[in-house]
Amino acid sequence: VPDGKGERPAATDFVDLGFARVDVGRLTRTGDPEVVYASGKAPSATVEIVSVLHTAAPQRAVLITRASDAHVEALRNRWPDAIVDQTTVAVGPMPQTRGRVVIVSGGTSDGHVVAEASMTVAAFGSAPEVIEDVGVAGLHRVLAVRDCLDAADVVVVIAGMEGALPSVIGGLVGTPVVAVPTSVGYGANFSGLSALLGMLNSCAPGVVVCNIDNGFGAGVFAARVARRCVAGRHDWEHP
Amino acid sequence: VPDGKGERPAATDFVDLGFARVDVGRLTRTGDPEVVYASGKAPSATVEIVSVLHTAAPQRAVLITRASDAHVEALRNRWPDAIVDQTTVAVGPMPQTRGRVVIVSGGTSDGHVVAEASMTVAAFGSAPEVIEDVGVAGLHRVLAVRDCLDAADVVVVIAGMEGALPSVIGGLVGTPVVAVPTSVGYGANFSGLSALLGMLNSCAPGVVVCNIDNGFGAGVFAARVARRCVAGRHDWEHP
Amino acid sequence: VPDGKGERPAATDFVDLGFARVDVGRLTRTGDPEVVYASGKAPSATVEIVSVLHTAAPQRAVLITRASDAHVEALRNRWPDAIVDQTTVAVGPMPQTRGRVVIVSGGTSDGHVVAEASMTVAAFGSAPEVIEDVGVAGLHRVLAVRDCLDAADVVVVIAGMEGALPSVIGGLVGTPVVAVPTSVGYGANFSGLSALLGMLNSCAPGVVVCNIDNGFGAGVFAARVARRCVAGRHDWEHP
Amino acid sequence: VPDGKGERPAATDFVDLGFARVDVGRLTRTGDPEVVYASGKAPSATVEIVSVLHTAAPQRAVLITRASDAHVEALRNRWPDAIVDQTTVAVGPMPQTRGRVVIVSGGTSDGHVVAEASMTVAAFGSAPEVIEDVGVAGLHRVLAVRDCLDAADVVVVIAGMEGALPSVIGGLVGTPVVAVPTSVGYGANFSGLSALLGMLNSCAPGVVVCNIDNGFGAGVFAARVARRCVAGRHDWEHP
Amino acid sequence: VPDGKGERPAATDFVDLGFARVDVGRLTRTGDPEVVYASGKAPSATVEIVSVLHTAAPQRAVLITRASDAHVEALRNRWPDAIVDQTTVAVGPMPQTRGRVVIVSGGTSDGHVVAEASMTVAAFGSAPEVIEDVGVAGLHRVLAVRDCLDAADVVVVIAGMEGALPSVIGGLVGTPVVAVPTSVGYGANFSGLSALLGMLNSCAPGVVVCNIDNGFGAGVFAARVARRCVAGRHDWEHP
Amino acid sequence: VPDGKGERPAATDFVDLGFARVDVGRLTRTGDPEVVYASGKAPSATVEIVSVLHTAAPQRAVLITRASDAHVEALRNRWPDAIVDQTTVAVGPMPQTRGRVVIVSGGTSDGHVVAEASMTVAAFGSAPEVIEDVGVAGLHRVLAVRDCLDAADVVVVIAGMEGALPSVIGGLVGTPVVAVPTSVGYGANFSGLSALLGMLNSCAPGVVVCNIDNGFGAGVFAARVARRCVAGRHDWEHP
Amino acid sequence: VPDGKGERPAATDFVDLGFARVDVGRLTRTGDPEVVYASGKAPSATVEIVSVLHTAAPQRAVLITRASDAHVEALRNRWPDAIVDQTTVAVGPMPQTRGRVVIVSGGTSDGHVVAEASMTVAAFGSAPEVIEDVGVAGLHRVLAVRDCLDAADVVVVIAGMEGALPSVIGGLVGTPVVAVPTSVGYGANFSGLSALLGMLNSCAPGVVVCNIDNGFGAGVFAARVARRCVAGRHDWEHP
Amino acid sequence: VPDGKGERPAATDFVDLGFARVDVGRLTRTGDPEVVYASGKAPSATVEIVSVLHTAAPQRAVLITRASDAHVEALRNRWPDAIVDQTTVAVGPMPQTRGRVVIVSGGTSDGHVVAEASMTVAAFGSAPEVIEDVGVAGLHRVLAVRDCLDAADVVVVIAGMEGALPSVIGGLVGTPVVAVPTSVGYGANFSGLSALLGMLNSCAPGVVVCNIDNGFGAGVFAARVARRCVAGRHDWEHP
Repeated sequence: VPDGKGERPAATDFVDLGFARVDVGRLTRTGDPEVVYASGKAPSATVEIVSVLHTAAPQRAVLITRASDAHVEALRNRWPDAIVDQTTVAVGPMPQTRGRVVIVSGGTSDGHVVAEASMTVAAFGSAPEVIEDVGVAGLHRVLAVRDCLDAADVVVVIAGMEGALPSVIGGLVGTPVVAVPTSVGYGANFSGLSALLGMLNSCAPGVVVCNIDNGFGAGVFAARVARRCVAGRHDWEHP
Repeated sequence: VPDGKGERPAATDFVDLGFARVDVGRLTRTGDPEVVYASGKAPSATVEIVSVLHTAAPQRAVLITRASDAHVEALRNRWPDAIVDQTTVAVGPMPQTRGRVVIVSGGTSDGHVVAEASMTVAAFGSAPEVIEDVGVAGLHRVLAVRDCLDAADVVVVIAGMEGALPSVIGGLVGTPVVAVPTSVGYGANFSGLSALLGMLNSCAPGVVVCNIDNGFGAGVFAARVARRCVAGRHDWEHP
Repeated sequence: VPDGKGERPAATDFVDLGFARVDVGRLTRTGDPEVVYASGKAPSATVEIVSVLHTAAPQRAVLITRASDAHVEALRNRWPDAIVDQTTVAVGPMPQTRGRVVIVSGGTSDGHVVAEASMTVAAFGSAPEVIEDVGVAGLHRVLAVRDCLDAADVVVVIAGMEGALPSVIGGLVGTPVVAVPTSVGYGANFSGLSALLGMLNSCAPGVVVCNIDNGFGAGVFAARVARRCVAGRHDWEHP
Repeated sequence: VPDGKGERPAATDFVDLGFARVDVGRLTRTGDPEVVYASGKAPSATVEIVSVLHTAAPQRAVLITRASDAHVEALRNRWPDAIVDQTTVAVGPMPQTRGRVVIVSGGTSDGHVVAEASMTVAAFGSAPEVIEDVGVAGLHRVLAVRDCLDAADVVVVIAGMEGALPSVIGGLVGTPVVAVPTSVGYGANFSGLSALLGMLNSCAPGVVVCNIDNGFGAGVFAARVARRCVAGRHDWEHP
Repeated sequence: VPDGKGERPAATDFVDLGFARVDVGRLTRTGDPEVVYASGKAPSATVEIVSVLHTAAPQRAVLITRASDAHVEALRNRWPDAIVDQTTVAVGPMPQTRGRVVIVSGGTSDGHVVAEASMTVAAFGSAPEVIEDVGVAGLHRVLAVRDCLDAADVVVVIAGMEGALPSVIGGLVGTPVVAVPTSVGYGANFSGLSALLGMLNSCAPGVVVCNIDNGFGAGVFAARVARRCVAGRHDWEHP
Repeated sequence: VPDGKGERPAATDFVDLGFARVDVGRLTRTGDPEVVYASGKAPSATVEIVSVLHTAAPQRAVLITRASDAHVEALRNRWPDAIVDQTTVAVGPMPQTRGRVVIVSGGTSDGHVVAEASMTVAAFGSAPEVIEDVGVAGLHRVLAVRDCLDAADVVVVIAGMEGALPSVIGGLVGTPVVAVPTSVGYGANFSGLSALLGMLNSCAPGVVVCNIDNGFGAGVFAARVARRCVAGRHDWEHP
Repeated sequence: VPDGKGERPAATDFVDLGFARVDVGRLTRTGDPEVVYASGKAPSATVEIVSVLHTAAPQRAVLITRASDAHVEALRNRWPDAIVDQTTVAVGPMPQTRGRVVIVSGGTSDGHVVAEASMTVAAFGSAPEVIEDVGVAGLHRVLAVRDCLDAADVVVVIAGMEGALPSVIGGLVGTPVVAVPTSVGYGANFSGLSALLGMLNSCAPGVVVCNIDNGFGAGVFAARVARRCVAGRHDWEHP
Repeated sequence: VPDGKGERPAATDFVDLGFARVDVGRLTRTGDPEVVYASGKAPSATVEIVSVLHTAAPQRAVLITRASDAHVEALRNRWPDAIVDQTTVAVGPMPQTRGRVVIVSGGTSDGHVVAEASMTVAAFGSAPEVIEDVGVAGLHRVLAVRDCLDAADVVVVIAGMEGALPSVIGGLVGTPVVAVPTSVGYGANFSGLSALLGMLNSCAPGVVVCNIDNGFGAGVFAARVARRCVAGRHDWEHP
């Protein structure tokens, strides 16, 4: 019988590998398992951490982000059926999806962020739908997908340079908008700062923002919102 | 008869006051009316704009943010039953609420941002619940409200200084977290920059961020998400 | 007899007032007289400088920008028929206009920059046409004025916050776009930095940018371009 | 019969390649075709996009900027008579030119930006004239080309380090000045920031600014202005 | 007989190698020998400097930080029993330790800074104890080591991203906290700036901060404090 | 009987005043009571919070920092024997002191930060000793107090402008150095940024840094270290 | 008898006022007395410090910079014949001058920095000559004073906005140029940052830079150089 | 016969190579020839420019800075007796020296900037004297060279990290101090920003600053001052 107290973190909620303390209790606490950020970790250490998480919850895919070629190779050696999209990897079965997340990008150069967001949405249990290259310099491209944006549970907008796309979309539809600035651009772009500031200062109400190039964070947030919008959260988190 | 096409913006969807083009079509397009940002506008101009919005949709409160004392006085002269909370004003009947938004702040100095967020949530049709002063330097204060955070449809976390609270909450519960950095602090706080960067770089997954001191933006976003989580969006936007 | 060499600056092309060296030769060199930036100058000194310029070229209005109330009072005491629009003042007859400059703003709070730009366009010999409050959060307001933008010789776009309006307009029409970021906004707006960076990184081709709140600079540039577009520059500068 | 409505963007104004939505309607809307920013795009994808644009308007050259060696090779394989200048490529016939754009640089290290600007001016239908290495530390080099600057329809000034050249030129002649800061320099140059800020704060009236190293943007703007100065815009855009 | 005056620096307190003036008097002045920062020095020069320091005080290990592979090889050639941990090297006998420094890190990617801090603590005469990967997104991992933190003489907290860990630990225990921001993260992390600002603005009292990735500085400071806490400083510095 | 477990935070460790959750458990957890940061709080609310803390632990002074004149007046009305030094106030008996903290400042303009640090050191149970105005431009002033620095348990160095003093002192003595940058200066000082960066990059080993003007944080840290250096920590925290 | 050793600082080279340690030995060490920076000091404390310096060396004027009206009043009460120029004050006899320092400013708004520099040059024993308002937008004003610049021993160039004037002058003459950026300007001027960066990146060789608005620093440096250029330094410093 | 007018720049004072306008008149105007900044120039173009300058004034060495290995090789192929020190090259006979410039560095890692400054001083006609590695963390190393600093005509101080050395030296001696910040350091050093800001805010009077790593600029300035200090400038510039 769940008693409320049972959900609280205990000292045994993590596995101590010496070089890492893997948070196997996060699935219980938050409804989603820990995700492995591969950058800066040795491939072998990454495999070991994934292994602990996979063993702890084999029914739910483990997500690995910012994986280099070496990481991907090491993960595929161990789990040949791992799903790989550019720098994002999933080990284990993807969950069933609820709700719909539309991912829109301003240009084709934003593609790697789109891929990270899309795979994260799927691994966190919602259905991603991708629409690329609808920058504001050709406004009719935005207007052409308006119905699609309107029907989504949440929209993720990914754009570099001046980052104006979330403002335009946020003024067109009432769907919640999660904006992701990208580092695409040069000069006074300052590696994504211009898009970041632009999105934070959006004149359209209800635009929220993630870190530069952070498709993962946007994907997690959007999936959580989208799956709640469909059948209520209690079904999902406490089946 | 609404025909899908009728929802598209038309040249007549705004009222031209000469000094302002009031967007009376936003309610139809996005499900929520235009909001008036009072800062930098003359009190008389503010009253005139509110008047146009109120006339266009008398059944839904018009929200005015960043109102000075002079703005408040002018609005109250015209609409004596206007609701005022610090610098936020509402003219007209508040909507029924759906869903629940918990608003958490790190310290008592964040109070004005809490007020703006809370009133916005209510004006955008969701129920705000405020928990103040649960900064991370006294972690047990956070742990004590864990059930409340867990039960919310969305959590708005407002904090200044290092802005660490969203990371702590984002690791405790799976509720979507909207973070608002505040300008509370001094020195290397750089008017809220430290909290802003901290929140954008949160190691907890699924934290999204608003502009510094932007309780309004967080409120709009949170209300939109929360009311969708209850009975589906279509009831709300197309009654 | 003008001989080409006569247009070159000479040591006598300025009037030395001790505290200032008034550039009375600029009208000959560049086709437009020197303009007085009042901020930081004593009102009496400002009057003295204007007097020198007015005497040197009484047929063309002297423009004074960033005038405080004290400056305005001192100027009006001396020249009762001076034209005043907020912080911009003109002493002497305004020139005939050639070409048309459309000045568009994102919000009503940008009004003081609009006023500076508009009066400068007129003082530099072109006809200003002002369209205010057409922010991108209500895109139909932009689309409604498209014909007007299309017909202009040059468009000045003034906007704060994320500064997205020039990108939207630059993608709609082929008219040259001069963008002016304003300091309207708060928090991560950083006193206009967000709009400035947004405009510098515009994905629409052919958008050029002025300093934050610099309606004057945009007005000078736009007027010079507009009057050239009509009857050729030689008529104007060498009548 | 053109009816005003026919110029408006339609949902069919772009070609959807899946990974890109090519804006083939921009030529009609703005008088100039879409340009391909190659950086971050696969060479094959670049070729495909160019192909769509070239097919849609074979009578006007397609411009490709920031092309790497791999891009250039792929483009030349497909169109052997493509024109290449450093990182800028043109596919298809260059337009006839109207008006004259003088491009001035402060030093020989600014050469790649000069090349981008020059080729863009030509592809956008005006005649570029290049004068390199006239930095302000040798003022007589500027004075020596004064007649040339005076006779131009518009001057593009390209400079790194302190970016003082536009101020000097803007005080000498009345020709409209478009300034391009470059990243040439080191230390407190901060990758072009010093030149950018210098140009934005120019004490010469009527100087407008582009992004750092953005020879393309300056070229588009300058060509549009220059060709309008000659025979009126209507000839060009609606032949 | 020490006479107070004898401790003062003299012109002979350094050894002039021509390219370097090695401060052999620092051990007497401050109780700890000079440390060699290898970055930017030639391997041979590094060996020569270490040699001077080692000769001057053979009883106390010389510490070398930020050593490249080439530096390590050169040092090991000369002193085969040098101790090497990643980029930190010690030549000569390590001192006996007094007091205990607990080094805590937020994630496994902070490992290289942990190694530098740990080896420095040992070389400066205190006992390091390392606890890695206890980030705030899994708070129970922090709570599980609370007793250990409480029992330390000083705690060094190493974290990247938002740098929130020192605030959480500083609110849990009264042990002095030395915080080290790391450059781990991306985007608006700005190479460690977010963690640096977060730590400087910590709402927990008594948190002090080192430079980004500066495990060395934190190690020196922590060791000095820890060894004083045990038996009084005079034993250590004046045996 | 204390059992180790009893020290852990419980939900009853704070007092909920509605507008504030006062952390009365901090004294037990960390050995020092919560401190009240008055800036941004109403004087009456400040008095109420102080009252809760004072009642919970009447034997130990409550410290209030950044108090305005209105705060001071309200506090003195309630507790006439409150100790006031510029903007710092203490209510209740000051603790006995252990250990010695020397506070050194670079110039007389740093006085308000010196006062905050000094009073904090005393309220946290150590003995402050202040030496003002020993800037590096007159090095002999530093050398003259060397014995005093050498004899301290910890040195707090407070300086604005270039913040070089900690480097000089850190190279002279082995005493742990806590550096506080101040906002004293102008221009490229950028409100204390120059001193902050200077101190973070100190070439002297073992210098740690606090936020700009943060005499309080330095005082807490220094007092904690100093009192541990004398008789061992256990006497203090568990009497 | 001076013996070389006697010039070294001694512990008695300063006067300890409790709140300040006045460096009365600086005149002997460096050839110039200490200067009092009044900002942030109480008027009475300022008078006391000046009194100590004046008594120690009555034959050489004491300089006080950044004096407010209250400072000036207090100083004049005590020394009625004090010389005052805006915010700079001198108490005691001005030294005879050697060498000539030309001070050039870009605009009349830079006047207060010019005044500080000019009075400092005089108090440090060289002859200032001021030429104001020769901004680069009117180049002939610079060319007109070329002989004067050429004949100076050192030139101090004071300018705000883009700070281009030192580059122009540095390319015209071989006189050493000391550049002072001012905070004159607005927007992307960022309180003098644009002029500072411009001057640091000057393409003219041999331009050195002072802090923003630091007329004092430039004056000291220029005077020291100028008086050495005339009759050799030994006459001056060791009469 | 020199007539005053003859020194003025003429249109023939430069040689137009097409890709560069070599300023051969600078020697006459400023007393020193143009210097070639090799970075970003092709080796062959560099050789060609040097050739023009060398031909115009064979009696005075041409200086080339920031030369890569390829530049050095090309220059040595053409002029086998070129003098090379790291990245600085001189072609032609070095001038006789007058006056003495002491160049002091804080650490051995600053060596490449020291080399650039030293060679520039020599090429501009003064005698450099180098003292390396006298950082402030070992103050006695500075005090040991005090006589040498005192006897110099000008001191160039080169330091990275916190850049405190110029403040210390500026307080010790009255010799004019030219400070050069270097990019040596890491983390919050921000590529030399910390040293730059530190030097600009020096509390020692009369410290002037060059761009980060700009040994060349400091060398030019110092040489010009030093040679004037000896026998008067007129001998040098007009022999």
